[in-house]
Amino acid sequence: MKQIAFIGLGHMGLPMARNLLKAGFQLSVFDLVQSAVDQLAGEGARAAASATEASENAEVIVSMLPASRHVEGLYLGDDGLLSRIPAGRLVLECSTIAPESAKKVHQAARERGIDLLDAPVSGGTAGAAAGTLTFMVGGDAAALEKAQPVFAAMGKNIFHAGPDGAGQIAKVCNNQLLAVQMIGTAESMAMGVANGLDPKVLAEIMRQSSGGNWVLERYNPWPGVMENAPASKGYGGGFMAELMAKDLGLAQETAQVSASSTPMGALALQLYRLLLKQGKGKQDFSVVQQLFRDER
Amino acid sequence: MKQIAFIGLGHMGLPMARNLLKAGFQLSVFDLVQSAVDQLAGEGARAAASATEASENAEVIVSMLPASRHVEGLYLGDDGLLSRIPAGRLVLECSTIAPESAKKVHQAARERGIDLLDAPVSGGTAGAAAGTLTFMVGGDAAALEKAQPVFAAMGKNIFHAGPDGAGQIAKVCNNQLLAVQMIGTAESMAMGVANGLDPKVLAEIMRQSSGGNWVLERYNPWPGVMENAPASKGYGGGFMAELMAKDLGLAQETAQVSASSTPMGALALQLYRLLLKQGKGKQDFSVVQQLFRDER
Amino acid sequence: MKQIAFIGLGHMGLPMARNLLKAGFQLSVFDLVQSAVDQLAGEGARAAASATEASENAEVIVSMLPASRHVEGLYLGDDGLLSRIPAGRLVLECSTIAPESAKKVHQAARERGIDLLDAPVSGGTAGAAAGTLTFMVGGDAAALEKAQPVFAAMGKNIFHAGPDGAGQIAKVCNNQLLAVQMIGTAESMAMGVANGLDPKVLAEIMRQSSGGNWVLERYNPWPGVMENAPASKGYGGGFMAELMAKDLGLAQETAQVSASSTPMGALALQLYRLLLKQGKGKQDFSVVQQLFRDER
Amino acid sequence: MKQIAFIGLGHMGLPMARNLLKAGFQLSVFDLVQSAVDQLAGEGARAAASATEASENAEVIVSMLPASRHVEGLYLGDDGLLSRIPAGRLVLECSTIAPESAKKVHQAARERGIDLLDAPVSGGTAGAAAGTLTFMVGGDAAALEKAQPVFAAMGKNIFHAGPDGAGQIAKVCNNQLLAVQMIGTAESMAMGVANGLDPKVLAEIMRQSSGGNWVLERYNPWPGVMENAPASKGYGGGFMAELMAKDLGLAQETAQVSASSTPMGALALQLYRLLLKQGKGKQDFSVVQQLFRDER
Repeated sequence: MKQIAFIGLGHMGLPMARNLLKAGFQLSVFDLVQSAVDQLAGEGARAAASATEASENAEVIVSMLPASRHVEGLYLGDDGLLSRIPAGRLVLECSTIAPESAKKVHQAARERGIDLLDAPVSGGTAGAAAGTLTFMVGGDAAALEKAQPVFAAMGKNIFHAGPDGAGQIAKVCNNQLLAVQMIGTAESMAMGVANGLDPKVLAEIMRQSSGGNWVLERYNPWPGVMENAPASKGYGGGFMAELMAKDLGLAQETAQVSASSTPMGALALQLYRLLLKQGKGKQDFSVVQQLFRDER
Repeated sequence: MKQIAFIGLGHMGLPMARNLLKAGFQLSVFDLVQSAVDQLAGEGARAAASATEASENAEVIVSMLPASRHVEGLYLGDDGLLSRIPAGRLVLECSTIAPESAKKVHQAARERGIDLLDAPVSGGTAGAAAGTLTFMVGGDAAALEKAQPVFAAMGKNIFHAGPDGAGQIAKVCNNQLLAVQMIGTAESMAMGVANGLDPKVLAEIMRQSSGGNWVLERYNPWPGVMENAPASKGYGGGFMAELMAKDLGLAQETAQVSASSTPMGALALQLYRLLLKQGKGKQDFSVVQQLFRDER
Repeated sequence: MKQIAFIGLGHMGLPMARNLLKAGFQLSVFDLVQSAVDQLAGEGARAAASATEASENAEVIVSMLPASRHVEGLYLGDDGLLSRIPAGRLVLECSTIAPESAKKVHQAARERGIDLLDAPVSGGTAGAAAGTLTFMVGGDAAALEKAQPVFAAMGKNIFHAGPDGAGQIAKVCNNQLLAVQMIGTAESMAMGVANGLDPKVLAEIMRQSSGGNWVLERYNPWPGVMENAPASKGYGGGFMAELMAKDLGLAQETAQVSASSTPMGALALQLYRLLLKQGKGKQDFSVVQQLFRDER
Repeated sequence: MKQIAFIGLGHMGLPMARNLLKAGFQLSVFDLVQSAVDQLAGEGARAAASATEASENAEVIVSMLPASRHVEGLYLGDDGLLSRIPAGRLVLECSTIAPESAKKVHQAARERGIDLLDAPVSGGTAGAAAGTLTFMVGGDAAALEKAQPVFAAMGKNIFHAGPDGAGQIAKVCNNQLLAVQMIGTAESMAMGVANGLDPKVLAEIMRQSSGGNWVLERYNPWPGVMENAPASKGYGGGFMAELMAKDLGLAQETAQVSASSTPMGALALQLYRLLLKQGKGKQDFSVVQQLFRDER
């Protein structure tokens, strides 16, 4: 039975770690927030006082951190975790970070003979809790083969996106498109309703037609159209607008590296920033619907 | 067995009329282009020398014309068809036109006791030929009930969008969203590929994730990803970029009426116009992919 | 001394008419709002009960109305003013309307031997009061020659933009550019201040550099930078955001006619509509600055 | 008489250094391109084999490099120039780089008691040759006082934008606004001409009206409107589109730091990237006009 270290027990990391426990893995966990560590310790994990301590004897290390600087801080440098673990270990870096940053960490791991995969997820806190996350994985196919049972305990779809950093690139491409579709859906919904259509009828027509998309299937931004969507619960829960703004920022960094032109993605970022300025960053990202509704 | 007049035998109208013939309806047809009339006459329709002549004795009139001005020209005014047919007839106006224009024609029909439905379609020439069009219908539910067998001979999904003009509004909402998704998909595809991803792999990841949409399901704009998509056949066939520009123009007219803000839809129109300026208006609308690929 | 009929005594028309009186012209005036008529009657104008009555004996007719439909309603049709005045009269149509609409009125005037100029203005209510408006004039040079003294009593710059409708086209081009510059200035101001710059210093640097524009010269949107700008008076007075939205709508109609791509102008319209949805339509158009400031 | 080291003799640096020579300063120069060094040596400068050698005995160091990484490479690190020159020296860093990068270099200079100013320029190669550049300066006012004679030999307007990095921030704000105005002007010009206006007449009307801006004053993008503008010389010379794309990229990095929403600036970047994809990056940035003209 594998021994796993899990570092980063936030909104996503905690339920992901819990699913590893449920699947029978032995877990040692670390987070800067002690209460999160304590909670998992109460469920059978071993509490560690540092990432290094958690990683001792662990065959696999899983990390889930907020941003590029945390990941680089954890792994790189003379004191970094990659300098403290033996060759041959497997690292599953699941944070959503800049592809350039992921490539740096990959490079450092390679130099030390450590197998590392960048494996950002989609599916939100609900998917993390249910163990139905999607993993988009960059790195060697052989390492992915080894990691399969670990991913399988936390997610449903595991995609091999390509070489080092490819997981992050697939993630920002996907989330950029998601944001564009969310806003595009929201503005077409608002325009249709303003011209007299019933929101449920319009949503259903577009869902079954060439306008169909994941937002219309699962996550309609108009309150009342889907009972379980965040829009119908005051835009609570779900995927926070400020996290979408973060991902769209990563997309623009990625576009900068390749000099790609992404007019829709760039506009989506600006509109989410307008929304954040209105104090709505902590609400679900479908709250962008409110930009297009009449407040008068 | 119903007698139907069919007016407007263009790329869409001709195969639609043919499907009515196949379904056993008696058809009298008219178009300004004599060869189209002759072709259907050869398949069993009665050739008429004018819209008025075609409509004599027809219980149902179906029209499929290029733009608002043609529809208003056909139906309205002292010489218009609505002044020449008796009350009680059923008119299925299938052209894609401005909602305001559709409402005018509805109003004139109501005043004369004629049942009229605005019923624009989606599905393109392929759907017209296969009889799998989607109809988005505005007008009275009772009239739609009567029209059902006629629609069923030409299409698969028949939606009642709402009152007079609602079909047109649903159509422009849907097509605006489709354009946004096409461009959003194209720019994420280009960004991913420019950063080293395989286009087929990226397309599949997004299709199965929260970026999923109709474009990724059926109509990927990157050449070679889908064997049967226009992108893999030199962007031939399909739905012409200039027709998408027309629909996006109708969307902006609709937004103007309701003072709706549709930043993504407005940007989509401008990008399609850039494409038209490059001489690509007659290619399939997925040719927008080329805007985002490196030509150097 | 010329006899002039002035039709339309709103925020712009009233001070324009007053300047004609001051310049010594004999004025007969009409508006649907009786109080406006009374006010000018008290200052020496002759009050008329209709546009037709006002136009009797007038060598020149000046009109200043809200939108295309009012102008078409006044001049066109069997009861229209153009059918009621003799050939040889001079009509100065100063409203801001769709170029297509202006061309229709021109055409009708030509058929009746009436000289008509489309002559929209810029300069706002302040320019109307001070008699410093800019007139952008479309139509025959000879008619403009005759109209010169009348324009000169109301404005400072009189441009001959070109043939029928050219005044309207020049106006929408100018105002589209103005809106783009206002928003561009507002977002660069907000970005600079958010990064620690003093708004007055930044405004002055850009004003004197390649970012210089009319907004930075006269109308800075950041409160406190210019003592007399609307921004420093709670965004009161000036040129209402909803009127800018109207002009940007006309610009999009114009772009539609010529299939022009205007991504910046289209985006400007959408952003102004977002602003209107926040209930700020009656404030000066520089209030767009608030979209970009932090409200948290 | 001051001894100055000049590092970076590219399109901008070379003429700037030449103006220092003309003003009577003693100059030692370095560039990786030997021919540039030789050229200035032939005009009286002392050729140095490295930046360190050039800086020996120099009271003032001026640098003009392509991008952030070159500037950080020159000044920072154990081998960096800031570690090799004595306290009390004055460094004028004139490159256009990321504000964050400028702040790092400032910080390193402060720690070593070296006076450093970030002082990016505007005015292009023409301004560099004529000695009429604008300097936007960030850092201490006292250091700026000392630097005044050096700046005065190369430029006309010297602005103190604020503390460390403020010069860069002012520069990106200005250039973002310039790009927005260039595109806004280009699209209004194209729309007006497509609707029948004479380009010279339209340009003049907008220049004198509320659409007036630096582009219309000095740099009209429509060929033939201004004899000396790059547009009238095949879009040669001037300020290359790829450099504008670089500056707009810096603007987006800056907006990212402050979470600023800059929809116009973001769209400008995307449109310049489309232009670069068409192989027009080496042409003057006013070539964006061609996006909006009909190529059919």
